[in-house]
Amino acid sequence: MKRVYNFNAGPATLPLEVLEEARAELVDYRGSGMSLLEASHRGAAYEAVHEEAATNIRALLGLGDDHAVLFLQGGASLQFAMVPMNLLGRGETADYVHTGSWAKKAIAEARVVATGGRAVNVAADTSAERPARVPAPAELRLTPGAAYVHVTSNETIEGIQWKELPHTDAPLVADVSSDILSRPVDATRFGLLYAGAQKNLGPAGVTVVVIRKDLAERAPDDVPIVLRYATHAEKRSLYNTPPCFAIYMVMLVTRWIAARGGLASVGRVNRDKAARLYAAIDASSFYTGTAAPDSRSGMNVTFRLPSEELEDRFVEEAAASDLIGLRGHRSVGGIRASIYNAFPVEGVDALVGFMREFERTRG
Amino acid sequence: MKRVYNFNAGPATLPLEVLEEARAELVDYRGSGMSLLEASHRGAAYEAVHEEAATNIRALLGLGDDHAVLFLQGGASLQFAMVPMNLLGRGETADYVHTGSWAKKAIAEARVVATGGRAVNVAADTSAERPARVPAPAELRLTPGAAYVHVTSNETIEGIQWKELPHTDAPLVADVSSDILSRPVDATRFGLLYAGAQKNLGPAGVTVVVIRKDLAERAPDDVPIVLRYATHAEKRSLYNTPPCFAIYMVMLVTRWIAARGGLASVGRVNRDKAARLYAAIDASSFYTGTAAPDSRSGMNVTFRLPSEELEDRFVEEAAASDLIGLRGHRSVGGIRASIYNAFPVEGVDALVGFMREFERTRG
Repeated sequence: MKRVYNFNAGPATLPLEVLEEARAELVDYRGSGMSLLEASHRGAAYEAVHEEAATNIRALLGLGDDHAVLFLQGGASLQFAMVPMNLLGRGETADYVHTGSWAKKAIAEARVVATGGRAVNVAADTSAERPARVPAPAELRLTPGAAYVHVTSNETIEGIQWKELPHTDAPLVADVSSDILSRPVDATRFGLLYAGAQKNLGPAGVTVVVIRKDLAERAPDDVPIVLRYATHAEKRSLYNTPPCFAIYMVMLVTRWIAARGGLASVGRVNRDKAARLYAAIDASSFYTGTAAPDSRSGMNVTFRLPSEELEDRFVEEAAASDLIGLRGHRSVGGIRASIYNAFPVEGVDALVGFMREFERTRG
Repeated sequence: MKRVYNFNAGPATLPLEVLEEARAELVDYRGSGMSLLEASHRGAAYEAVHEEAATNIRALLGLGDDHAVLFLQGGASLQFAMVPMNLLGRGETADYVHTGSWAKKAIAEARVVATGGRAVNVAADTSAERPARVPAPAELRLTPGAAYVHVTSNETIEGIQWKELPHTDAPLVADVSSDILSRPVDATRFGLLYAGAQKNLGPAGVTVVVIRKDLAERAPDDVPIVLRYATHAEKRSLYNTPPCFAIYMVMLVTRWIAARGGLASVGRVNRDKAARLYAAIDASSFYTGTAAPDSRSGMNVTFRLPSEELEDRFVEEAAASDLIGLRGHRSVGGIRASIYNAFPVEGVDALVGFMREFERTRG
């Protein structure tokens, strides 16, 4: 069986062991005579999967009883709407930190939702700066009494990441789609975290939301029932049929993370992978990183070559060497190597070797 | 490998051939060196799946250029909110036909959404009648100039189904979650159709929406971008990352339906399956159907036994004979046999045989 190194930004590579386990039980789930794809979401087989997925995330993040773990649909994009719909009351202001392409989408959607005397304040905007960077905490112009402060922990397109998210008086809301469970974090201090699964957690089709239970009760009366966090918290994400198979994959991936030693251990491996790539960039004048060094992402390593023509050739020749998905986002160009949890260190070394050889022959 | 007869109401049985095909290419998708679960939603491999799924549905429903086929998330439950958010303008009234448990949920959500001088009119209400039934077209008290008329084509819990959906002046909006692609239908006359996939189309995690393109443009300005039909129609359901694997399964299931001869052929088989079960019920005074004969569902066959104790025993002994998922919904009790497209006629015959034997020994 062929296996490439898959640097896609999301959907992204998954642990091979997890894929093989899913295949082994895909048609006849553990002797039940049916696939889990066919099993009732109210039955014992799926119920065990659903519970383990939530329990694994709770344990990995060190959450206590103050927070609920939810499995929703619609991706981070639906959270861009649900967050202000649920948490921004009449007459209130929400602070948003604008760091790049994903923050921009969150802000645009919040502005659509924030009618009726509700306001969106951009507390800092580094989105146009090059090299790209996240702001220092002292740069944030936060609103006293804000409903919440929204940040994007990692910008996949600009290749930047907060080393530590800011401490705020208002509840901290974070889009952690592209770095959830990739490093140790004190999750208990967040009001709300959300993540589409398709980068660090599993396949596309499920969104993990961690919410402080008191915040789940805040939604105004005119928020549709299905778009209230409280609805899903009360029903343990079984208000309606959940995306069972995607949650099953999240269960397998989180079990895999735990078996590798949890976030401290996975975080060390991820730091090491990123360090190898950034070292290769810094050792060469042929490759230029696009992020400010202290804002560099551990998940999406972005860099440029001397010309777009060379970048095209780099991407093509890498693909011919089974290094797949290295083209930067169409909005910024360049090269992007996404190295989420499941991306193997061997693939990083293969890319570093390819970079050296490419520079030697084409530079 | 064991294979039971799975009468679950949803998620529900899938064609065995489809499951086996998904398994065969789960880890290495067609020699690409990665799983489709890991493939970019912007790449050629997934793009072909996405297009074929939409094309198959378009062809099976005989749709022309007036309608868009969308793949959304959130299930029918999110459509209960999106329909009035998008289609019900200020000062307008939407007509809803209340036939049972699913219509009730659609109406409740529409009432939450319909603030600001918008109204929800229940045009008929047969939900409390026993035997359960759908209203005759002449019973509908429709609002002149209504924004739309909403119906539930099949009520899974009450076991009733419209033989033909009503002809209305206002755009007809139908929740077809439990009978989409189960019989020939003139889909071109609908304003909007929506269906969670997990009954007739595939696994849980994707919702198929068919919308007349002019209706997709109706949304008021304060509807969040991600909740506007126009957003997804313009981006061919690639506005954000779609639930790729669920759509892949829908592609395989719709291909399977087409290979069996399309809706006319599948509809004949489904009619025959239902007829065998209803004949068994009608031939016995031990079993009593819960739906009025001319409203009987071809998808969910519901019936009672003389006592709840006998019903419990029936469900248990059936399960011991590998006839799984026959317990009626907890809100109504009794027995329910869900026999969607992928449910085999051999399983119907097995249930009929079991019913005869159970009556002979327990009746």
